[in-house]
Amino acid sequence: MSPQEFRQFGHRTVDWIADYWERLESLPVAPEVAPGQVRGLLPRHPPEHGEPFEALLHDLDGIVVPGLLHWQHPRFLGYFPANTSGPAVLADLLSAGLGVQGMTWSTSPACTELEQHVLDWLVEILGLPDRFRSDGSGGGVIQDTASSALLVALVSALHRAGKGMVRREGTGGRRFGLYVTGETHSSAVKAAIIAGLGEQSVRQVRTDPATLALDVSHLRTLVMRDVADGVTPLLAVATVGTTSTTAVDPVAAIGEVCRRHGIWLHVDAAYAGVAAVCPELRWLNEGVAEHADSYCTNPHKWLLTTFDCDAFWVADRAWLTEAMTILPEYLRNAATESGLVTDYRNWQVPLGRRFRALKLWAVIRWYGVEGLRRHIRQGIGLAAELAEWIRADERFELAAPHPLSLVCFRLRTPPDADPDTANLRLLERVNASGTTFLTHSRIHDRVVLRIAVGGTFTQRHHVEQAWQCLAQEASRILRSTPA
Amino acid sequence: MSPQEFRQFGHRTVDWIADYWERLESLPVAPEVAPGQVRGLLPRHPPEHGEPFEALLHDLDGIVVPGLLHWQHPRFLGYFPANTSGPAVLADLLSAGLGVQGMTWSTSPACTELEQHVLDWLVEILGLPDRFRSDGSGGGVIQDTASSALLVALVSALHRAGKGMVRREGTGGRRFGLYVTGETHSSAVKAAIIAGLGEQSVRQVRTDPATLALDVSHLRTLVMRDVADGVTPLLAVATVGTTSTTAVDPVAAIGEVCRRHGIWLHVDAAYAGVAAVCPELRWLNEGVAEHADSYCTNPHKWLLTTFDCDAFWVADRAWLTEAMTILPEYLRNAATESGLVTDYRNWQVPLGRRFRALKLWAVIRWYGVEGLRRHIRQGIGLAAELAEWIRADERFELAAPHPLSLVCFRLRTPPDADPDTANLRLLERVNASGTTFLTHSRIHDRVVLRIAVGGTFTQRHHVEQAWQCLAQEASRILRSTPA
Ligand SMILES: Cc1ncc(COP(=O)(O)O)c(C=O)c1O
Ligand SMILES: Cc1ncc(COP(=O)(O)O)c(C=O)c1O
Repeated sequence: MSPQEFRQFGHRTVDWIADYWERLESLPVAPEVAPGQVRGLLPRHPPEHGEPFEALLHDLDGIVVPGLLHWQHPRFLGYFPANTSGPAVLADLLSAGLGVQGMTWSTSPACTELEQHVLDWLVEILGLPDRFRSDGSGGGVIQDTASSALLVALVSALHRAGKGMVRREGTGGRRFGLYVTGETHSSAVKAAIIAGLGEQSVRQVRTDPATLALDVSHLRTLVMRDVADGVTPLLAVATVGTTSTTAVDPVAAIGEVCRRHGIWLHVDAAYAGVAAVCPELRWLNEGVAEHADSYCTNPHKWLLTTFDCDAFWVADRAWLTEAMTILPEYLRNAATESGLVTDYRNWQVPLGRRFRALKLWAVIRWYGVEGLRRHIRQGIGLAAELAEWIRADERFELAAPHPLSLVCFRLRTPPDADPDTANLRLLERVNASGTTFLTHSRIHDRVVLRIAVGGTFTQRHHVEQAWQCLAQEASRILRSTPA
Repeated sequence: MSPQEFRQFGHRTVDWIADYWERLESLPVAPEVAPGQVRGLLPRHPPEHGEPFEALLHDLDGIVVPGLLHWQHPRFLGYFPANTSGPAVLADLLSAGLGVQGMTWSTSPACTELEQHVLDWLVEILGLPDRFRSDGSGGGVIQDTASSALLVALVSALHRAGKGMVRREGTGGRRFGLYVTGETHSSAVKAAIIAGLGEQSVRQVRTDPATLALDVSHLRTLVMRDVADGVTPLLAVATVGTTSTTAVDPVAAIGEVCRRHGIWLHVDAAYAGVAAVCPELRWLNEGVAEHADSYCTNPHKWLLTTFDCDAFWVADRAWLTEAMTILPEYLRNAATESGLVTDYRNWQVPLGRRFRALKLWAVIRWYGVEGLRRHIRQGIGLAAELAEWIRADERFELAAPHPLSLVCFRLRTPPDADPDTANLRLLERVNASGTTFLTHSRIHDRVVLRIAVGGTFTQRHHVEQAWQCLAQEASRILRSTPA
């Protein structure tokens, strides 16, 4: 494709996206497709000869779009949002066009330095500790996801706990303990499996029944039991904003246990961490400065930065880089050998790296810190209003505190009806309506529905429409449920 | 940013990229910057208020571009190419604009199904075995990189070797052996570290001194030794196109050893695999159909698909998904429970997933299989010509076979000069000239220079210019080297 053709098709593609964003509201949020239906529309064999670019856009409209769940739809309220935004998309486009590799400093110095710089900015913006800054002992890096961040934290923790031995000899000789709760994201168990520790290494710390936050006295008990059993307490995950309900684990108290036993404290603030851009939410960071060995939050969730962009910091980068660095001849270069530069390939699983800092830079500059605050506050404000509507409607009950922009609730059902069945049926009906899209979870083994506000395009009237749809379907279900 | 603003800035951004591609030739390939220089030009604190989009483009030109190594420069001949291309960039732009998540089928059915489909297409295009297809026992998935693919292969191998035990109990109880050569990519040792096996699990199989390909009889010896020592032979990496010299390990013969001992065979064809799009290069796949348990190749290297796009296949997907699947309540959905769909989150380390299949789809459709062949053949043809020029020039010698588009060579030096020093000095001078950019490696502990053709924009005259620059700097060095 010549630069001239690229201009032409590029303008069309940009317009296609602008049109898509403008018409999102008129599309059903969730698709109606059966497994295999999309593939059934695609040619069985690849084309021998090149096709015009229009053919791609044509099939995008005819085949792909009808098979998508529209995460950017203003009435998408499922999971957590995965914000995309104009400045992030354009900066990501620049990254694709530049096509540089940031695996080492020398393979594109600006790619590494801009990343260090915007992650230092983010430390300031979120009120994170100075020791996370690249000019201290620590440093930040963009990982693809919070899952990868946790894996990398675990590898660093093993390196520290084994005093370097694990890198050489593996995890074999010793037993290690990981501390999570039933509310911790499943990526923790996945990391334990990938790192060769197995599910057996994972201890389930109890949670407080009311707050669903980690119960520190039970953590202490489990750690002591492990110590007594000859198991090395290795890593604790403290979640700031759990996936099901945005519960906040007591980082400071967990940190004290960790410190006493040399446990690596990883703080997973994937969703909620970015909210600390607002001074009134700085409490989310309580204990992080004193205790966190590593910390992550995802600008690709709730901070307007197109996936993938997980911001990950360590307090002491040496554990990470000593655990992961291998320097083959073909990657040797003078800058690396000078020791003056950061080679991010040693901070992550992959070797190759895209220029992801551009999109974070663009988002911070376009919105300004003030604009980022406005975005977070809007999500929180809408969630608070929605919670009021739910509270005021006797057919529903709130199921958990809603400190941020997620509201968990359930339909109240007559005593002889099964509440889980009714709530899942409600979910199914609401999602099938196309008006909105919600997801569910369980609290104390009972189904709850989740509404996560915070989408880039979500305004008050969208939340209102979703609520009306929910109320309407609820009436239908209650009418048909035996009383 | 409103859709209207997005249109306006989007067109400007597209034009910026087209201009960049057009003016690349006038830029020095490598930047002249010292560590910290780029950061020194950036404001110390993030902006409180939003800035116009023009400010970003302004700093892109003034601060970022001068700090980049231009991987898309037509005279960039270092490492391996990291192809970007018009259709890939535009499809990636669509992916960012759509902003959907492909972690499970139900979170965007078209995202998963298009990925399965184009990876089945690629099986056909590259002549890979049918058992890699999604309608057989196997299946393909896009990983970010070959490094992640290898890690995932290793986790699957552990699951198979331990009959599921490793997932529960970790790698602790048993010792495992990994078989690589000194030419295998460093991501193999990195994967061994991350997976908790440690460096001690890695056996260095000797290579044939002439071809640098794995010596199968030595592999047999090492495996037998491990078996005798009570070590479980776990995984062998066969590289098709090694990083230093594009040597090709004997996959079929390695596969026979693997089969006899239940060893997982991972074929790493990160760079070279895509060349099998040409029938005359199908020999690159020899043994893969019969023996490979997993296989990867990177369209983001030499197949015109913007990073990140590693195509990874397994022959039996059950080992992979059984090793990695965890199903928390918040990800449960009817489609997953029906067993009729593929949830790619279980095929990779991260949870979240970008819609990467779009760019591979766009590349295959825009170029057609015929166009892809043309691209590969052009790289190989230019490398062959370059090798002729080197062979014909008595100041140089070829240092390894060049079956693909990489040429390894060295400057011949007078008997009393140090050849490594002279070659590294030549490399430094050539790169400092700005005309081209090359990298180096070592063969039998002697420095060699590498020229990797295959860039999207590289034409014959660019290779010629690079060669002239090299010849000129060589004369200077030889003149100043004591005879
Ligand atoms: C608390 C928490 N941690 C981790 C994750 C995993 O996210 P990722 O896709 O970035 O791995 C999530 C996703 O929702 C989450 O809520
Ligand atoms: C043979 C081989 N394997 C793996 C890799 C690692 O690539 P990635 O960045 O995709 O992990 C490379 C990179 O050059 C390679 O040449």
